Amino acid sequence: MANALNLDTVVLSEDGKSIIILDQTLLPGKTEYLSLNKAEDIWEAIYKLRVRGAPAIGVTGGFAYYILASQLDTDDMDQFVAECTKIMEYINSSRPTAVNLSWALNRMHAVLLAEKEGKTVAQMKERLKEESIAIREEDIAISRNIGAYGYELLEKLGRGVGVMTHCNAGTLATAKYGTALAPIYIALEQGWDPKKDLHVYCDETRPLLQGARLSAYEMQTAGVDTYVQCDNMASYTMKSGKIGIIFVGCDRVAANGDFANKIGTSGVAIIAKHYGIPFYVCAPSSTIDMTLESGDEINIEQRKAEEVTEMWYEQRMAPEGVGVVNPAFDVTDHSLVTGIITEKGIATAPFKESFEKMGIRPVEKYVDKKELCS
Amino acid sequence: MANALNLDTVVLSEDGKSIIILDQTLLPGKTEYLSLNKAEDIWEAIYKLRVRGAPAIGVTGGFAYYILASQLDTDDMDQFVAECTKIMEYINSSRPTAVNLSWALNRMHAVLLAEKEGKTVAQMKERLKEESIAIREEDIAISRNIGAYGYELLEKLGRGVGVMTHCNAGTLATAKYGTALAPIYIALEQGWDPKKDLHVYCDETRPLLQGARLSAYEMQTAGVDTYVQCDNMASYTMKSGKIGIIFVGCDRVAANGDFANKIGTSGVAIIAKHYGIPFYVCAPSSTIDMTLESGDEINIEQRKAEEVTEMWYEQRMAPEGVGVVNPAFDVTDHSLVTGIITEKGIATAPFKESFEKMGIRPVEKYVDKKELCS
Repeated sequence: MANALNLDTVVLSEDGKSIIILDQTLLPGKTEYLSLNKAEDIWEAIYKLRVRGAPAIGVTGGFAYYILASQLDTDDMDQFVAECTKIMEYINSSRPTAVNLSWALNRMHAVLLAEKEGKTVAQMKERLKEESIAIREEDIAISRNIGAYGYELLEKLGRGVGVMTHCNAGTLATAKYGTALAPIYIALEQGWDPKKDLHVYCDETRPLLQGARLSAYEMQTAGVDTYVQCDNMASYTMKSGKIGIIFVGCDRVAANGDFANKIGTSGVAIIAKHYGIPFYVCAPSSTIDMTLESGDEINIEQRKAEEVTEMWYEQRMAPEGVGVVNPAFDVTDHSLVTGIITEKGIATAPFKESFEKMGIRPVEKYVDKKELCS
Repeated sequence: MANALNLDTVVLSEDGKSIIILDQTLLPGKTEYLSLNKAEDIWEAIYKLRVRGAPAIGVTGGFAYYILASQLDTDDMDQFVAECTKIMEYINSSRPTAVNLSWALNRMHAVLLAEKEGKTVAQMKERLKEESIAIREEDIAISRNIGAYGYELLEKLGRGVGVMTHCNAGTLATAKYGTALAPIYIALEQGWDPKKDLHVYCDETRPLLQGARLSAYEMQTAGVDTYVQCDNMASYTMKSGKIGIIFVGCDRVAANGDFANKIGTSGVAIIAKHYGIPFYVCAPSSTIDMTLESGDEINIEQRKAEEVTEMWYEQRMAPEGVGVVNPAFDVTDHSLVTGIITEKGIATAPFKESFEKMGIRPVEKYVDKKELCS
């Protein structure tokens, strides 16, 4: 097995006093880990996207809550709770639209409120440590299960398969394994040869280049035969016959199977359907929102024009004052989706029934219907 | 009318002694004209893509031949012909795969060989001047006719229409008007309001960014309401309902209507078909090669990896050593094409019959079947 998973996106240090994160703003040029234990440094790391990807941000939020709580110098539980509330609010302000961040912080705080009776502050600190570790382990288990279901599809296609992906939904976006790239990691664990048995094509994913910078980096680090292509080359590559399957991540799935993901995903799906290539969405069941009837209810944020015209470049690459289209996400119609791989199994059309059979029900979700973040 | 066509891509100077070209390598930041009359400078301008676009390169070749021939200091016709042969070979070596360049140089030289008898060198120089001007005027007439046929489609859709395009097939790629953008210029000439009646969406067109740098520049210079979008946003914009028609240029059309154009065009066509948006190819009849049965016979050149991973960027944006896909062109299937707009009319399926009705026949073409260049 290649060193596929030697990249730790976010972990608790051995002494339990710091969060260690891989600084993703330096990728793909430099692999550098940061050890953080001050509130301001953790806040900055989240704000500046040194750690990114919805699940990875959630795990960071859990560790941040625990580490900062463990530093509080009080034996008084009421004071401890009051200070923890401030920690929660402060860390949440680093990326207020990141739903997994507030979800993880709220989960930590709920444990504190529910279990504080009869416990000392010291005991409570231990309990919070356990909870933060549990958040990470649960995230890994979810990704691993998605990977295992996806791997079954790869096995049917056989060794030597070409996989296309868009954006980064790999180990860098989660605690480990990722979602869309998890099937690759499971294949490597099962002894597939990274150079011969797998060929991964990463859309560069303009304007933020997560495919070129992050997916290509982690696939190459895993030893996999990896290719970067401009987004507009997906049709050429699919037509060439080299692509056996497409895996993408997702930010939100509606009950009918429509889903929101990084801008460009819907185009990949339309082209895949044209060429008859199976197109799979890798989605933790927590991203499936049964209260949304269809993708029409998902609001798409427009981002700054400069990301398209200036960011990364040596000089501005479009005329001053020109209009710019820069949606962060797009919604892909369920009719284009071969299957939705969750940690509970693979849903197929009609998706609503398939989700219900898996036990996914409409509940009040932690996710805000208006905002997506990845 | 807006100042749509104040940009002169390539013209002969008033005194007939220099070629004046708009230096496209400085766009969109600077609008600078170069006045060239030395062989080395003209060679460099073509080689460095200061002038680009197949028709514009052809026009440049004609002027280059005339200007350099006019400088020859001899009254001996045999010596004049020998020197002109050297000029032709030297200029052709600046971009040997650009078929329009060799076509224009050969056309100039053929005039010399066919008409030299009974003429003085001075008379022959005048004749070559006429021919070089004729090459430019014919190019403008072809573009203008394509624009007029395309404008009829815009008129049917009505004022306020949104137009999407890919790469640059505008006035900058030709002597004037362009191909894919010609219908816009004709609409402006017909009094359409550039801000209200037309909305043009330019795919940025990675990796060379001709859409962001050139199409957006010339549309903005024409005063048109112009938007740049990353290539992967085409599906989002088409789904939004803002796009009434798509115009693209092309490099080569096969008898069945399959065509090669800048990488990414086939994806745009597939997505347009999905959303039911009319997709038109703007093609001078000289690009229709009736000796090619289908697009399968068109060979696609792979370009340097650095264009994807490094060019334009402040730092390398993909890991060192990663594989890169970088085809210059792709082939779009005729089944995705609503119509092919030529200077002789609009061809529709079945394209071969439609081309034949227009009088386009299989002939020995000047174009090399193996190489495309734009």
